[in-house]
Order: sequence, then C-alpha cells, then structure tokens
Amino acid sequence: MDSRVIEHAKILVEWSTEIKRGDTVGIRASPDAHDLVVALYKKIAEKGAIPITLMSTEEMDRAFFDGADDETIDTPPKHFEALLETVDVIIALRAPSNTKALANVDPKKVIQRSVALKRVQELYLSKRWCLTVHPTTALAQQANMSMNEYQEFVYGATLLDWKAESELMYKMKEHLERHKDIRFTGPETDLFALTEGRIWIASDGKHNMPSGEVFTAPIEDTVEGKIYFDIPFMQQGKVIEGVRLTFEKGEVVDFSAEKSEATLKEIIEIDEGSRRLGEMAIGTNRGIKQYTLNMLFDEKIGDTIHCALGRAYKENNGTNESAVHVDMIKTMIEGEITAGDEVIYSKGKYFYEK
Amino acid sequence: MDSRVIEHAKILVEWSTEIKRGDTVGIRASPDAHDLVVALYKKIAEKGAIPITLMSTEEMDRAFFDGADDETIDTPPKHFEALLETVDVIIALRAPSNTKALANVDPKKVIQRSVALKRVQELYLSKRWCLTVHPTTALAQQANMSMNEYQEFVYGATLLDWKAESELMYKMKEHLERHKDIRFTGPETDLFALTEGRIWIASDGKHNMPSGEVFTAPIEDTVEGKIYFDIPFMQQGKVIEGVRLTFEKGEVVDFSAEKSEATLKEIIEIDEGSRRLGEMAIGTNRGIKQYTLNMLFDEKIGDTIHCALGRAYKENNGTNESAVHVDMIKTMIEGEITAGDEVIYSKGKYFYEK
Repeated sequence: MDSRVIEHAKILVEWSTEIKRGDTVGIRASPDAHDLVVALYKKIAEKGAIPITLMSTEEMDRAFFDGADDETIDTPPKHFEALLETVDVIIALRAPSNTKALANVDPKKVIQRSVALKRVQELYLSKRWCLTVHPTTALAQQANMSMNEYQEFVYGATLLDWKAESELMYKMKEHLERHKDIRFTGPETDLFALTEGRIWIASDGKHNMPSGEVFTAPIEDTVEGKIYFDIPFMQQGKVIEGVRLTFEKGEVVDFSAEKSEATLKEIIEIDEGSRRLGEMAIGTNRGIKQYTLNMLFDEKIGDTIHCALGRAYKENNGTNESAVHVDMIKTMIEGEITAGDEVIYSKGKYFYEK
Repeated sequence: MDSRVIEHAKILVEWSTEIKRGDTVGIRASPDAHDLVVALYKKIAEKGAIPITLMSTEEMDRAFFDGADDETIDTPPKHFEALLETVDVIIALRAPSNTKALANVDPKKVIQRSVALKRVQELYLSKRWCLTVHPTTALAQQANMSMNEYQEFVYGATLLDWKAESELMYKMKEHLERHKDIRFTGPETDLFALTEGRIWIASDGKHNMPSGEVFTAPIEDTVEGKIYFDIPFMQQGKVIEGVRLTFEKGEVVDFSAEKSEATLKEIIEIDEGSRRLGEMAIGTNRGIKQYTLNMLFDEKIGDTIHCALGRAYKENNGTNESAVHVDMIKTMIEGEITAGDEVIYSKGKYFYEK
C-alpha cells in the first residue's frame, strides 16, 4: 500500500479524532476509498477501538432520487440515526468515482431530502467527526490534473505538521476575539459584520483533513455591504462562478452569478436562513496552492476568505438555521482583512508573518 | 447497467425480502457490488423504503485482525448491533475482490471474533434477511471460469421462476415431515438421524439467492453412522477436501480430510456444538451444475445433500449451539435419500420427478 495512505490514516486516527480504547468508530466511505478504509481498520484496531463502515456514493443517492416519491424523500433514515446515536467517532472519506451523478436531479429534491436528514446532520456534528478525501481519478479530472499530480496535491495539503499549523491558527483566533467585528475589503468588495459574543474557531484538522481556516458565525442581521467571490465552486453537480452578493441588515438584497445563476437563486430562496450568512472565515493552508472545485480544499487555500449562506454552527454561537450551508470563496491577495482597528491580513501576509 | 443486475435487484426486493413502504433496509456489500447496490437503491425507493449500506470486505477484516489485541477482538460492535436493532430487512451482497485475504489469519482469532459477533448474528437472523452474490473476477477465478462464464453461472442459478421452484420445495418438505427420520446412503456413506419434532424448511429464495434446498436440524444425539463429503469447500481462506466423518450418539468420533485436515480439526474442536450436526439438507437447484467453492451456490446444487457442523437454526427447532456453522456437501447421483420407508431421492431423481 502507498505509504502516504498509511500516514493519512495515522493523522486521522491520532490527530483528528484521537481514537482511544473502547471507542466505537463509524466510517463513511465510497468504494474507491477502500485502501484508506483498510489502513484505518488496522490503525483503529491498534488503538483498541471498533470500526464499522457505511458505503455512500452519489450514484446511490441518484438511484434513490430516481425511485423515491415525495413521501419517501421525506422519511428520515431511522436506522442511520440509531447507528449515529451509538458511535463516538465518525470519519467520512470522500472518494467519488463520478462527481456529476446528481447533476440532473431536481435541486428541490436534494434540499427536500436534506430536511429529512436534519437529525442525521445534528447527530453527526455532535460527535468527534472528521471529513477527508481519498484521491480518485474523478477528483483528479475535476481538478484538471493527472492522478499522480492530484495525489501530490492531496497529500501536500494533508500530510503536514498539524501541531505547528494549530499553533498559528490559535494565535489568529486570539487576535480576532479581541475585537467586536470583521471586515473584508478588496476589489468589488467591502463586507462588514459584528461578531461580538460569537466564537472564532481554529479549524486545525480535527473536523476537516486537510484543514486550515479560522471561522465564525457573524451576528445574523449585522452583515452589510457587498462581496465578489472569484473562485468557482460546485453545488448539486453544477459549477457556480463569479458570485456577487449585496447585504442589508444581514439579508441578501441583490445577487448575481456569471455562471449557474439559477442554481444560486434556488439556494438563496430555499428558506429564511439561506439568504443570510452562517459563516465568515479566513483560509490559512499554504499547502493548497490552487482551487480544485472541492470545498474541503478550496475553502482552506491560504490568502483567501470564504462566507457561507445558510446554517450556522452552534460551536460559533451561531443562530442562523437553514437546510443548507453553501460556502463561497474569494482570493484576498489584493485585499485586506481587519478586525476592529487591527489588520489581520494584508496583501499576502497574515499578521503573524510580519 | 447490465439488465441482469436490475432483474437480480427486483427478485431480491420483491420475492426474497418483500420490501414495502416504511421498511428500513440495511444492505451489506463489498465495493465491487456497487452496481447491484445502485440497482437496489432505485427499487427499494420505488417501494417507499429507506436503504443504508455497510461496506464489508475480507481485506478490512484482515486489517482489523492485524491491528487488534485480544481485548479488542472480544469487544462486540455496539454500533453495528444498534443499527441491526432498527432495521426491518437485511440484504447481504458478497462480491469479494480477493477470497483469500483471511487465509493467513490464525483461525482461532477468526473464531474468537465470531463469538463477539454472536449478538450481531442473532439480530441478523431475527430479521427479513437475504444473502446473495454479485459476480466478481475473484469469484470467477475461484470458480475456475472466465468472468463472462461466471456471470452466466450466477444469473443461471438466480434468475429463475421462484414461485415454481418454491412449489416443488414445499412438496418435498411435506413428504419429509410425514416421517420421523432421515437417511443418506451411498459410496462410503450411511448416515441416519431422527428428525421428529424438527421442522423441514423449504429454502425458496427468501434468505438465500440463489436458493434451492430443503433442510432441517437433526435431533442432536441421534446422528449415527459415517459419511464422505466429496465436494471441496472453503473455510478461513483454506480449501478443505475429501472429509470423512463418523458419528456415535451425535458426536464426531472419527474424522479425516484429504486436504487441510488441520483446519477441519480446529473447527471440530472449537466448542461442544462444533462436533455435532446443526443441519442436514437436500440440494434442489438444477440451475447450478458444478461447484464453485462458494457455499451459497454449492449447497444448493441439484442431486446433492449437505450437513453442517455447529450451530442449528431455531426455525428448524434445532438446539445445537456453537460459534460456527460449517457446511459440507456430497454428490448423491449414486446414492439414495430415504425418510422412514419413503424414497425421497434415488440415483438422479427426486420423488416428484418419477
């Protein structure tokens, strides 16, 4: 087996989820992640924990949508919930063989299903959980790379000294929490929000692998201004590109997209919460040098910020509720991030790099 | 998708497990069964039921054994048990990419783990469950066939008129239950057991797909005589061949094997129950014309009988308890099956073919 896969498994078990004797571990994986599942089984067993693995692919989801009527789509998966109630740790491995299997499903059905999966999502987030990627040719293709390049990309972002990364991210969190607001400025962008009473989280590889972001939930009705997200992203099998949003009293009052504007519109109109921001965040992972249409990596790119429409995280003291959480990213190499009167980032340098 | 895969899914959902609206369905599958999983998802959703899939391979089991100490091997999987408590239906799809991944694991560890999985096994058997195979090159290789030949073999055994098969099997069950005993005779074989108060089950594709056997649990201490099993079979990654057993008062008092006798010895010595028969059975599926070292098919071959050392099924009113259930098969083309004074099978013909 590729020694990088074994190293990846070790980071997931020892750093991300800190698995210990007696833990029950649920893995969620697509078939192409089998190698990483095997590496995890050995490492998890060495710790004295017990693994079980769920198979999950977008082709399976697609087949479900193809067969299900409304009543079925609305039915929560009671057996999945029961499993999640009893696990201590969840490790989700994304390794799709086709990233477009859901492209032609009515987005309303996808959203309708996510409402039925609300309890699953809540349970998932209440555990020691981590999401990661195992390289596949489908992801390499989406990233515009050969498989070898893509493997280098994934392990270059993942096999880091997470203790050292963590120290820098916690330093940023401390600085941000000294202030009551956050502001992103740059080309076509001046977005402001209050953050008092909210928690900035240093995402240091516990929940996402790779990670590298410091994020909070803004006070919902204080988001003001406009922003231009220059990095494309995927939703429901569609690439959305060049999103411009204008906010007043926390709500989107104007929006456009250079590509897939209809899908953006659907997202914004899902519910009350999907027209508000649930997250504002700063990417810090300098091991990730380009976007690959995979949010797990793209939102962590160094020299970027991102915002999410929809559901806020409770760990941030966020209150925005929604069936969705859709991240959008902006390069900041020509911009500035300020909190109160402090410059957190300016044109290529974080404050701790000065 | 191969239309035979869709037909296979339809039989599993409509005939084997009779899935209906509101059912929670657990599928257990190896990655190579993904096509059949996808076909099942559509069919299950059409019925208004909710599927979830567990990934399971021998490579994963092997990695677990490689990492686990004794305490870990003895730990039951509480999360797996919780999942099984809440499912109505279980469909297990065997589609190994390597049938020998467990060949070099100490058989004692495998047995030790199966003791920790006793509750899992009990829960499994308490549901509407069905076990089937999806063709893989590993199974084709084990069967000494090309992949195309092997697909023909699997679907030739599986895509039958199960209603018609069921009627013949139920006829055989009725005849067997008129009598108080069963006797298998033939070359090197004369095995007798009482069956009064026990139930003969017509296995007509509800629990195994393909199926085609009528089986019971003999009264444990009444098995007398000797038997020669001429068809090879696999246990713990080893091929065991040419097994001869002699019984007195239900217990194995003498045994030998032409191949892998040490593994046979380990099985017989696992516990009190593993030296007694938990099952005696008649194979009836004429769609299966040769053995392939896969018990799901081999024990159903027409013109054969089989016996299992170890655990009896409660549905037969069987009482034998054991951590194992190991089937062994004998060709009956030169032999005879009698129940009381009635000939059930003789040299190529079942009673209903006369």
